[in-house]
Amino acid sequence: MTVSTKINTGRFFEDFTLNEVIQHATPRTISTGDSALYIALTGSRNPLHCSEPFAQSLGYKTTPVDDLLAFHIAFGKTVPDISVNAVANLGYADVCFTQPVFVGDTLSTSSQVIGLKQNSNGKSGVVYVRSTAVNHRDEPVLSWVRWVMVHKNNVSAPAPETVIPELPGFVAPEHLNIPAYFSAKNFDHEATGGQYFWEDYQAGERIHHVAGMTINHGDHSLATRLYQNNARLHFDDFAMQSSSFGKRLVYGGVPISLCRALSFNGLENALSILAINAGTHANPSFAGDTIYTLTEVLDSWALPNRTDLGALRLRMVGIKNMSPGEITEIKSNGAYHQNVVLDLDYTVAMPRRGSN
Amino acid sequence: MTVSTKINTGRFFEDFTLNEVIQHATPRTISTGDSALYIALTGSRNPLHCSEPFAQSLGYKTTPVDDLLAFHIAFGKTVPDISVNAVANLGYADVCFTQPVFVGDTLSTSSQVIGLKQNSNGKSGVVYVRSTAVNHRDEPVLSWVRWVMVHKNNVSAPAPETVIPELPGFVAPEHLNIPAYFSAKNFDHEATGGQYFWEDYQAGERIHHVAGMTINHGDHSLATRLYQNNARLHFDDFAMQSSSFGKRLVYGGVPISLCRALSFNGLENALSILAINAGTHANPSFAGDTIYTLTEVLDSWALPNRTDLGALRLRMVGIKNMSPGEITEIKSNGAYHQNVVLDLDYTVAMPRRGSN
Amino acid sequence: MTVSTKINTGRFFEDFTLNEVIQHATPRTISTGDSALYIALTGSRNPLHCSEPFAQSLGYKTTPVDDLLAFHIAFGKTVPDISVNAVANLGYADVCFTQPVFVGDTLSTSSQVIGLKQNSNGKSGVVYVRSTAVNHRDEPVLSWVRWVMVHKNNVSAPAPETVIPELPGFVAPEHLNIPAYFSAKNFDHEATGGQYFWEDYQAGERIHHVAGMTINHGDHSLATRLYQNNARLHFDDFAMQSSSFGKRLVYGGVPISLCRALSFNGLENALSILAINAGTHANPSFAGDTIYTLTEVLDSWALPNRTDLGALRLRMVGIKNMSPGEITEIKSNGAYHQNVVLDLDYTVAMPRRGSN
Repeated sequence: MTVSTKINTGRFFEDFTLNEVIQHATPRTISTGDSALYIALTGSRNPLHCSEPFAQSLGYKTTPVDDLLAFHIAFGKTVPDISVNAVANLGYADVCFTQPVFVGDTLSTSSQVIGLKQNSNGKSGVVYVRSTAVNHRDEPVLSWVRWVMVHKNNVSAPAPETVIPELPGFVAPEHLNIPAYFSAKNFDHEATGGQYFWEDYQAGERIHHVAGMTINHGDHSLATRLYQNNARLHFDDFAMQSSSFGKRLVYGGVPISLCRALSFNGLENALSILAINAGTHANPSFAGDTIYTLTEVLDSWALPNRTDLGALRLRMVGIKNMSPGEITEIKSNGAYHQNVVLDLDYTVAMPRRGSN
Repeated sequence: MTVSTKINTGRFFEDFTLNEVIQHATPRTISTGDSALYIALTGSRNPLHCSEPFAQSLGYKTTPVDDLLAFHIAFGKTVPDISVNAVANLGYADVCFTQPVFVGDTLSTSSQVIGLKQNSNGKSGVVYVRSTAVNHRDEPVLSWVRWVMVHKNNVSAPAPETVIPELPGFVAPEHLNIPAYFSAKNFDHEATGGQYFWEDYQAGERIHHVAGMTINHGDHSLATRLYQNNARLHFDDFAMQSSSFGKRLVYGGVPISLCRALSFNGLENALSILAINAGTHANPSFAGDTIYTLTEVLDSWALPNRTDLGALRLRMVGIKNMSPGEITEIKSNGAYHQNVVLDLDYTVAMPRRGSN
Repeated sequence: MTVSTKINTGRFFEDFTLNEVIQHATPRTISTGDSALYIALTGSRNPLHCSEPFAQSLGYKTTPVDDLLAFHIAFGKTVPDISVNAVANLGYADVCFTQPVFVGDTLSTSSQVIGLKQNSNGKSGVVYVRSTAVNHRDEPVLSWVRWVMVHKNNVSAPAPETVIPELPGFVAPEHLNIPAYFSAKNFDHEATGGQYFWEDYQAGERIHHVAGMTINHGDHSLATRLYQNNARLHFDDFAMQSSSFGKRLVYGGVPISLCRALSFNGLENALSILAINAGTHANPSFAGDTIYTLTEVLDSWALPNRTDLGALRLRMVGIKNMSPGEITEIKSNGAYHQNVVLDLDYTVAMPRRGSN
């Protein structure tokens, strides 16, 4: 027997070239099965994603799939090409939800290398990519920038020219995409159970969401496989036993989705995510951890030509094994509190009081 | 930062008013994903809910979703408003399955307070509600009464007038709803694998179902989130560690569904649930418990104008970590055996011998 | 109370008669929920089963469901009648995938007893069955032979005449079924991410797939229930504690599916399974085991009248808790290495280089 060389070992730092475009494999047609699983995995209670009549009352032809389900599926496709040899996911920025995704849409993702910076140790480097997911009509549905630290395989490979992309601090209100057909004129707050509208949230307000969710191995494994994210460190306990963690890590998208679902109580009318301005996985999560969340209201924007909806810029902080009310300093001296797992700056659409 | 007061902490005993109607949030459109998950979570083998041709042979346009899936989804909506501060779910009664639920139907639930009784300790009370789930055509699909013990938040709040609703001991045969189109004339018992028909079951018969199902954390968490039931004690292990249980409790609907699925062997032709006459969660279940079940035949009723189907009133007893054949006294001196988790009195439709 | 005798205890060795045909219960309509769950349970990234446009580019009307999902669902139906009293699943042979299964198809399975051999101890025997799954148009979609060792209930029952069926060593290329409409003329290898085509694989090549997947209790329980396989030893931890294993066994189909999914990296263009020539569960798997896989290329066949596709006969070996590169002797002196869980000889269709 000859040992095959057909295994794709993934790209190392020296395999990325500035401006190259990588088409990722595994186009995926979204189904109602995906949406049902997403509810079962997160406990999401947002009626926009589970009630056809409610979605239709807002002008949608039917329920759009959860913004984060679309994100995780689109993201998962990039893993084999971008981050399978990553040391760390350093951050996200400029995540734009361009248009809703519906059951029956087929998502494909490509990524362009927009920045490269070799580390001073010469053993790894940071790769910046802009990834874009399109539907089967080749219309963009979402795009994002992320940067990851990737090992070099050949440490003697020359360092590329350092290029660090300029990234916006947040997606500006005028760049937010809201479908023209989406209207909150007929918004029924009994469907969300939320009594608070856009005008009721003020910058400087912090919401301590009460619910917590313990992550089971079954949960995060199912979720990460559903997203076709094949990063080994989430699945291979045998190999991870000899890692510095000693066990499997939870995919960082799992706490993002849990925090979004847990923050429903207090943000019931935050109907859809328009952008993720910035995101950091502050500390890893493991099975057995209980995730809590707090939200800080960062800003509140009226939207151009919109009297029915406004936007809120929110900071969603994921915390493990500690009540959100007990945490005072999320970050001090530039370092995250050890129980903080997620720091996500995002923007939501919310109906205005008296919109209807 | 100002700490927000927008969190919905749920109703306490003094927040319920006799006769008030509460519209619950989160309408839900049922999908094939929900049904697939229900099979994966329970192992149900009832062909009425998984075979279109079989369902059509009985007059249905397509497969109705499992009666208990519809129940759990409808029920889950009531939790944030009714039982999030409950000390205990004391019981169910008069659960009527009014008409089948199909994929594409959107369920909404409302509850009316039909009884109130403050406990003598002045710290809690019992709330009785009748909840009704309707589909998107506003037709009732199922209704039930339950009563829960709920904490008072303000112990000095005055006690309401005591009103205890009169509840039927069981749903009378003439109140059972069977769709007019449902006919067992073409019933094919090879599809269920069941050799026994309505005439073969006699009051006084006890069936020791052989199969057992161990509850995994992943299973009950997925199920309870699928039902959008957000009661914290099922999910938040960190908080539950300091409860008297020391760990998460399994949602009581999980053993109900497991017992129904486990009782398929012995009740293969119990095609659909017409009513739940009474139900008690006798003891809590935890992950790691193995659930078994036994059935006692309580009564057997011919149905008005029906030669194809009869009804059986059954008692389904859920038992943990003990073979059903070993239990002799389910209840003695008014107290349940410590291994009994469920005592459910329900009514099923079953084809009559020679119906076809 | 009278204890009922209505429980189906399953067939024992003496209950099988040569040539009898057993119609299994629980016809099942396949849904998109099943396919979504299959992805979540296995991490499969094969675009044929998750992308409608990709499937359509190959001539399919829509995505066929995963071959192994169809197999497990069809197989599960046989368990209550064939193997519920089995001591061991001894092997599979001549598994033919006759035509694709689509969402909406309803599968039913029947089995014919094609061989019987009582063991010399007189306490058990081997039963050979050919099982055939048909869709709702009564067209065969898949058939297989398996043989199981089954206990006798009545050890004094006479031994049947010994009949051992002749089974092909492999499904001959001329017996492989490829739909007439399936064409790789427009095959897009960017959708699979695979750079290697039929011509690139040579007999004698061994592929050490890098990924590993740890089996969680939640995973295998969900999968096995999804397949409506009710064999107690997969689910009932309480009973299994007093078995020789001391715990639940994982259904053998779970490692089959995991190995198929894990072998995607290295076999990206192995689009569909045409046959399983032989299969053995070499050792049991348990929750907590991490499954790895290696593939040996056994043979390479051009297909009659096909310039777009060829067939590869592969040996897929499932290994637990050991890197595939570390295993040298899969079997020595007729005994499997203790870490080998699966030895599966199967045939796939793969596009030819320059097919398009």
